Amino acid sequence: MNVKLVLKLVGRVVLLEAAAMVLPLAVALIYREDLAPFLLAIAIVAVVGFALSALPAEQRFFTREGFVAVGLIWIFTGLIGALPFIFCGYFATPIDAIFESCSGFTTTGSTILTDIESLPKGILFWRAFTHWLGGMGVLVLATAIVPKLGIRSHYLTKAETPGPVFSKLVPKQSQTSKILYSMYFALTALEVVCLKIAGMPLYDSLIHAFSTAGTGGFSNRNASVGAYDSVAIDVIITIFMLLFSINFAVYFLILTKKWRDALASDELRFFLAVVVTATAVITLANLGVYSGVWESLRYTSFQVASIISTTGFGTADFVLWPQFSQLIIVLIMFCGASAGSTGGGMKCSRVLILLRAVRREVHRITHPRSVEVVKLDGKLVSESTLHSLLVFLGAYVITIFAAALVISLDGCSFAVSFSAALTCVSNVGPGLEAIGPSGNFAAFSGLAKGVMSLCMIVGRLEIFPILVLFSPSTWRRT
Amino acid sequence: MNVKLVLKLVGRVVLLEAAAMVLPLAVALIYREDLAPFLLAIAIVAVVGFALSALPAEQRFFTREGFVAVGLIWIFTGLIGALPFIFCGYFATPIDAIFESCSGFTTTGSTILTDIESLPKGILFWRAFTHWLGGMGVLVLATAIVPKLGIRSHYLTKAETPGPVFSKLVPKQSQTSKILYSMYFALTALEVVCLKIAGMPLYDSLIHAFSTAGTGGFSNRNASVGAYDSVAIDVIITIFMLLFSINFAVYFLILTKKWRDALASDELRFFLAVVVTATAVITLANLGVYSGVWESLRYTSFQVASIISTTGFGTADFVLWPQFSQLIIVLIMFCGASAGSTGGGMKCSRVLILLRAVRREVHRITHPRSVEVVKLDGKLVSESTLHSLLVFLGAYVITIFAAALVISLDGCSFAVSFSAALTCVSNVGPGLEAIGPSGNFAAFSGLAKGVMSLCMIVGRLEIFPILVLFSPSTWRRT
Repeated sequence: MNVKLVLKLVGRVVLLEAAAMVLPLAVALIYREDLAPFLLAIAIVAVVGFALSALPAEQRFFTREGFVAVGLIWIFTGLIGALPFIFCGYFATPIDAIFESCSGFTTTGSTILTDIESLPKGILFWRAFTHWLGGMGVLVLATAIVPKLGIRSHYLTKAETPGPVFSKLVPKQSQTSKILYSMYFALTALEVVCLKIAGMPLYDSLIHAFSTAGTGGFSNRNASVGAYDSVAIDVIITIFMLLFSINFAVYFLILTKKWRDALASDELRFFLAVVVTATAVITLANLGVYSGVWESLRYTSFQVASIISTTGFGTADFVLWPQFSQLIIVLIMFCGASAGSTGGGMKCSRVLILLRAVRREVHRITHPRSVEVVKLDGKLVSESTLHSLLVFLGAYVITIFAAALVISLDGCSFAVSFSAALTCVSNVGPGLEAIGPSGNFAAFSGLAKGVMSLCMIVGRLEIFPILVLFSPSTWRRT
Repeated sequence: MNVKLVLKLVGRVVLLEAAAMVLPLAVALIYREDLAPFLLAIAIVAVVGFALSALPAEQRFFTREGFVAVGLIWIFTGLIGALPFIFCGYFATPIDAIFESCSGFTTTGSTILTDIESLPKGILFWRAFTHWLGGMGVLVLATAIVPKLGIRSHYLTKAETPGPVFSKLVPKQSQTSKILYSMYFALTALEVVCLKIAGMPLYDSLIHAFSTAGTGGFSNRNASVGAYDSVAIDVIITIFMLLFSINFAVYFLILTKKWRDALASDELRFFLAVVVTATAVITLANLGVYSGVWESLRYTSFQVASIISTTGFGTADFVLWPQFSQLIIVLIMFCGASAGSTGGGMKCSRVLILLRAVRREVHRITHPRSVEVVKLDGKLVSESTLHSLLVFLGAYVITIFAAALVISLDGCSFAVSFSAALTCVSNVGPGLEAIGPSGNFAAFSGLAKGVMSLCMIVGRLEIFPILVLFSPSTWRRT
């Protein structure tokens, strides 16, 4: 293990984080707020960043180092991003600040704050900005860096991946990242403009656009998007939440006018089918809660888009919906968004491939002599990819139950401990009962908050980088 | 599809069921109870059985027919076994009677009865006897018939299966079944004797031995085993619940004095490790509920054995335990007993292989050039077996959530709908909150009860036979 090189890489990202803190500093300056939390944080982060990136290191770098670096970068980012929260004095304990920062960077959006509106504008800006940075990090990680590592694992590798994959479309990694950043930036800017036109203040528009882009969910209002009570704003954010949970490679195909390829994506079709079905069924199930189909459709479509995109904004409290509607919400939390987007969860493509693998198993029994393969986008999914994917799904469920077990030490109900673990691992935001859209995560113990913070990172990195980081075999000399 | 031959097979099993009803008829005679329910049921069942088994049929029989026959046999058995319940007048609706019968034959042990002790002794005898018959059916199905079908599926095939498998130990199927029946009968008889010595009335001893043997859980007392409040009875039933959830091939190895092979079973070790760990951890977590370690150990060990064996007897209401203890109970409901036993759940060997597959995945990342295989009992688990196993686990989780979704239409809490689906698919018995050990399933709607009855059969047959039965591709002409 080339520890020095790994730490050097971590140092570079930490330096970027220090630079990113200049933006909320500027916001605090504009609103004449206390600058100390940011100045102090930037100073510390810069020192740590320079020290780490100055480490002398050989250029030996293998898959193992890649996984460990990815794991450590996210843990460091989460910890260091908490500094402005710690220094501002609005967070009860350091673990609360770390929870909020991890929730931000992993684009989860769960909060321990009980009165968001009482916080300074600079701090709330940093909070939402971590979503935007985290979303960008994940996009580049999932679409540019990981496929280049050539990892034969749960990550679909470059050669094996069916469906549109960015690294297949654009050969050079630097170019890939550049195109991704541009699209991400353009979509965010477009949302800011739309929200401003719909009547949202500029500051609020920025906050909500950052949160939507990262599919995070932090708002600067206690009642989240519901605070504006505007159909136009609801519709705009619904559309953008869905846009940010689609594989970015699809946009690239559209930009290069390969419309047919873009629309042929099985994952896109499956994603849209789930959105439409869930919205239609829950709209009907919620008729008793709302006055008429249109009101039910308005609130249902927003909440479905918010949960499946793993954003977590709220315009209604789904905890008050019928249990049937809530169970569909839980199911789409599992499912999550598309691969190659900023959204979390198991990802639609994996769920789709699992369903096809089950169908093939049934077909194999009834037609033992026929050879049937699992396909995505008309292309074969190799058996080794399928195997890694199934192991990933198993590890996903195990992680959720293991986390729920620790959270249950707090004495909360089964629905709370299970949904807390699920919402953190899937990077969604709200859960059931006390941690629903109108609730928050303040009441949990330090242990539970720590475990949930780790779960957010575990989920964001799709489990294996953190398993590799903590596996003794990684650190054994070979 | 050779429908006639399949129905002919169903007919033979139905005839056996008619014969089995003579025993509860005798019990009703002894206790001078109403004989009509059994006489009527026997008459109807015999007519149906004779009609079906008299069908002229060719001897063409393939895997597909095998799966459909297995699925239909269990559905017919469940429906027909409900007749005495329907005729006795103690069940509110036919669906209640069907639920109870399916719960019996699948050895689940969930009940819709609110006052068990008010029922006639003959009916309660039939109820427990269905557990015993179901347990025997599953044993023969899992250890003798299925491996002979040579199915390359989630069922580990004869050639591929690692670990002790009955059909490998004894070449002839008739011989296998005979040895199995003898061991099953001997263990049941031994339990009756032990319970009688411990002071339980003979009738009660028979009921509880039948339920333990099938890992079912029906009792003739409202308070289940807790009604006797005897340490000796608790210990005896704890031991027998564990004995009936161990692979019967292990006993065969012991009988033939292959001690080393018997104790080398990875699944046995894993099963015992889970039992000991869960008991130790919950005993400590429950210290606040009980007065002292010994009392806590007494009630915890019984409940852990009851749940992991998927029996479902109760001496304590775990719904009143700390949430942490309850979550461990949920986890061992998933895990379940050993393959080749009468217990349900995912089975310990599958959980163990999944954990090993995850570990291999991590090892593959850190050591990309090493070739590592997944082993059980020191023998290679082939990639195709592993694949089928992973698909099975995925289908298992999907089934539970799909069933929970339908159950949630009743408006029950997330914990209830989820645990109801889990306990039915895993053939355990009790669930959380209102359907805990002191509760029952009476309050559910007919739809929910119907879905749960099907889930019990789906779980008992390990999903695929029912998927094959309802798959259009099965019925298409080839």
